Amino acid sequence: MQELDGFLEEHRDRFLQELCELLRIPSVSTDSRHAEDVRSAAVWVAKQLEGLSLSTKVIETEGHPIVYAESPPVEGAPTVLVYGHYDVQPPEPMDEWITPPFQPDIRDGNVYARGATDDKGQMLTHIKSAEVWMRTKGSLPLQIKYLIEGEEEVGSANVYKYLAENKEQLACDVVVISDCSQFAPGQPAITYGLKGIAYFELRVTGPRQDLHSGTFGGSVTNPVNALCRILTALVDGDGRIQIPDFYDDVVGLTDPERRQFASLPFDERGFMEKLGVSELFGESGFSTLERRWARPTCDINGIWGGYQGEGEKTVLPAKATAKFSFRLVPKQDPHKVADQLEAFIAEICPPGVEAELVRMHGACGYVTSLDSPYVTAATKAIEQGFGRSPVFIREGGSIPIVTAFQEQLDVESLLLGWGLDDDNTHSPNEKFCLADFQRGIKASTYLWRELAKISND
Amino acid sequence: MQELDGFLEEHRDRFLQELCELLRIPSVSTDSRHAEDVRSAAVWVAKQLEGLSLSTKVIETEGHPIVYAESPPVEGAPTVLVYGHYDVQPPEPMDEWITPPFQPDIRDGNVYARGATDDKGQMLTHIKSAEVWMRTKGSLPLQIKYLIEGEEEVGSANVYKYLAENKEQLACDVVVISDCSQFAPGQPAITYGLKGIAYFELRVTGPRQDLHSGTFGGSVTNPVNALCRILTALVDGDGRIQIPDFYDDVVGLTDPERRQFASLPFDERGFMEKLGVSELFGESGFSTLERRWARPTCDINGIWGGYQGEGEKTVLPAKATAKFSFRLVPKQDPHKVADQLEAFIAEICPPGVEAELVRMHGACGYVTSLDSPYVTAATKAIEQGFGRSPVFIREGGSIPIVTAFQEQLDVESLLLGWGLDDDNTHSPNEKFCLADFQRGIKASTYLWRELAKISND
Repeated sequence: MQELDGFLEEHRDRFLQELCELLRIPSVSTDSRHAEDVRSAAVWVAKQLEGLSLSTKVIETEGHPIVYAESPPVEGAPTVLVYGHYDVQPPEPMDEWITPPFQPDIRDGNVYARGATDDKGQMLTHIKSAEVWMRTKGSLPLQIKYLIEGEEEVGSANVYKYLAENKEQLACDVVVISDCSQFAPGQPAITYGLKGIAYFELRVTGPRQDLHSGTFGGSVTNPVNALCRILTALVDGDGRIQIPDFYDDVVGLTDPERRQFASLPFDERGFMEKLGVSELFGESGFSTLERRWARPTCDINGIWGGYQGEGEKTVLPAKATAKFSFRLVPKQDPHKVADQLEAFIAEICPPGVEAELVRMHGACGYVTSLDSPYVTAATKAIEQGFGRSPVFIREGGSIPIVTAFQEQLDVESLLLGWGLDDDNTHSPNEKFCLADFQRGIKASTYLWRELAKISND
Repeated sequence: MQELDGFLEEHRDRFLQELCELLRIPSVSTDSRHAEDVRSAAVWVAKQLEGLSLSTKVIETEGHPIVYAESPPVEGAPTVLVYGHYDVQPPEPMDEWITPPFQPDIRDGNVYARGATDDKGQMLTHIKSAEVWMRTKGSLPLQIKYLIEGEEEVGSANVYKYLAENKEQLACDVVVISDCSQFAPGQPAITYGLKGIAYFELRVTGPRQDLHSGTFGGSVTNPVNALCRILTALVDGDGRIQIPDFYDDVVGLTDPERRQFASLPFDERGFMEKLGVSELFGESGFSTLERRWARPTCDINGIWGGYQGEGEKTVLPAKATAKFSFRLVPKQDPHKVADQLEAFIAEICPPGVEAELVRMHGACGYVTSLDSPYVTAATKAIEQGFGRSPVFIREGGSIPIVTAFQEQLDVESLLLGWGLDDDNTHSPNEKFCLADFQRGIKASTYLWRELAKISND
């Protein structure tokens, strides 16, 4: 392995330059104006894989393309499917970025750019680790299939379709995904549970047009007041969701899980300081880590209606809209939640306005077993890459594709987060630690060896 | 008076052309980018008054200018002060205008433009009526002072200052204002009561920056959720305000008032159809007219926070803002309401966020006596101008200057609305009925005669 370590060390700067190249492409999948940029990122990833002599294709879909590549099968060794995404979240609000989101800037040992950690930087570690093997050993110790998509930030509809229609091609023993976080700086983790999500837009309409709030106030329901009232009714003052039967399918934490979480060195004061809040918040009876990792939540993601300009406008607005989402825990079904929500809104909607609920993306949560040989292999690889044993954590974010892999391919996913909690994922000034980029490549390089030791019978 | 009627008839088209000239000036006082347009409108009004040989000046203020003009005193006749405003509300939302807001369009007997009814069209009737007198009789039958300002839509701060500092100059027996509505098409009205207002902006801030709603949901208070919760707590499901002691100073309606309102031919079904709502809404125990005219209300005028673009963004926003206002009834003090509100928000604000309440403009409500000789004079003038006796109504909108005239000059105001309820005041497609413009000029022409008959002893 010395040879591999040596190659990695020698090409460290080039690997970073290549990451910056990818980060310069504004592959914002949510915004149709960036469609060509998204394609450019796909082509960039495909060229990387082709450069390793992998059989590579850019697959057209009804949306953004999927990049697929595979190395030859290795007898006696398992097949691993690497999943990642080259698309990114919108960069807004633009004025809060210290340096422009698509001009990667290196400072304080980090690279700052939209997509740095989510997921371009993390995804690239698994391509660079294959390069390490190919350029030193001339081959990989096991078969790797790469499925790198461009619609992760918009619900992955076309990857699901592709997955359902290409099960044989994608068949594997385990999936590897790096699209989440370590537990803390210097403390790597294996994420064994994820939340699901149910995302909605709610449009409340009242009078035909904006009205004078003096002349008409007190006679018609104000759609902004109504929207706020509906949204407020969804949760109580502690953030516990008030939709009838919402908690029916929620699986509680086990005592060992709660003990494990409690044993983690979570610095609540430091966490608050980092976020700049004076108090934490959430469902009573649960610790902060429990709430973040394993309890359902409801957040309004955006709201707008009426006059938002300078000064005053005494208007009773004709309509108001909000985007909001529930984070779900394993066993909660986003469709069932949507049905429950729709019924609840129908019941509580104030008179004289219409409330239209638009169902956006939904995904189930996920929990895997800590006893699998793949988890053991990943544990060893991380020890070698990061010089420290990983802890076992869960995550509040969603990787809905994980559920799809389980359902379609009957395989588990290794969720190996190289990011950090303060990477500003989905926020201005997103970053990725350069040392973690290198450690991730090294851990991935060792992961191929550790997984290759497992029999694929 | 035949001579006056004849002149009015003859110059009908030119009067309309002049109104359109004024409507073409985008004098949006709330938006600093329109400062020069606001000035142009002031100059336009001043030229009109100068053209009638009135002693006229454009008075500079710290904000937009005030136009002041006066005719000579007439012995034995009272002095009337005409108040109006040449500034307008912002035209947004732009995409809902059928024709552009500052390109007046004549259709269906109306002129469509921002400011058509509020207040350029109504204000101009009192200048054109003076023109009728000057061009036919060579003088006015009483002294008229004109105070036409450019900051009515932003709280009139500089007019209040001017008023306080120039009481002698502005001294008068009665004020005439046309900045409200008739009761119905063909049914003119004298408005004897107005609501006050207390307008606020509430800024809720939480974490230092936008966060990933999966990773951080369930641990920090979401400022949009918090803002909705605070706003929803302000009123109950019927729109009754929940701020402690808010109703302490509310003067209830008298039985004769309630009977008078009930006798008005208010077509509730037609009102709903016009607004495009399926149900009306408001405090229980009061009729729709009572709620609109004489009960306090609370409306959110605008709200924004988080992601408002295309698609989905799973963000926990760092901040959220709303503009909202209370309509107050006579005897309620906007400063006291602001204090009560501030205390209430401090009490109910969710933990972990800061709520900053910005006090914007405030004004008291107003009720006048129906027995005054000025009301009798106005009643006669309206009968002549509109061919029908006015009804006596109140109005949900605010004309805070009315309270200031009462306090500073110790005079009552005649509120003679030439507009209609469906004029789309403050909304897209604002209009003013051309026939009402003409009838308003005629009523105003007669008003000078009727008022002149009153002794000013």
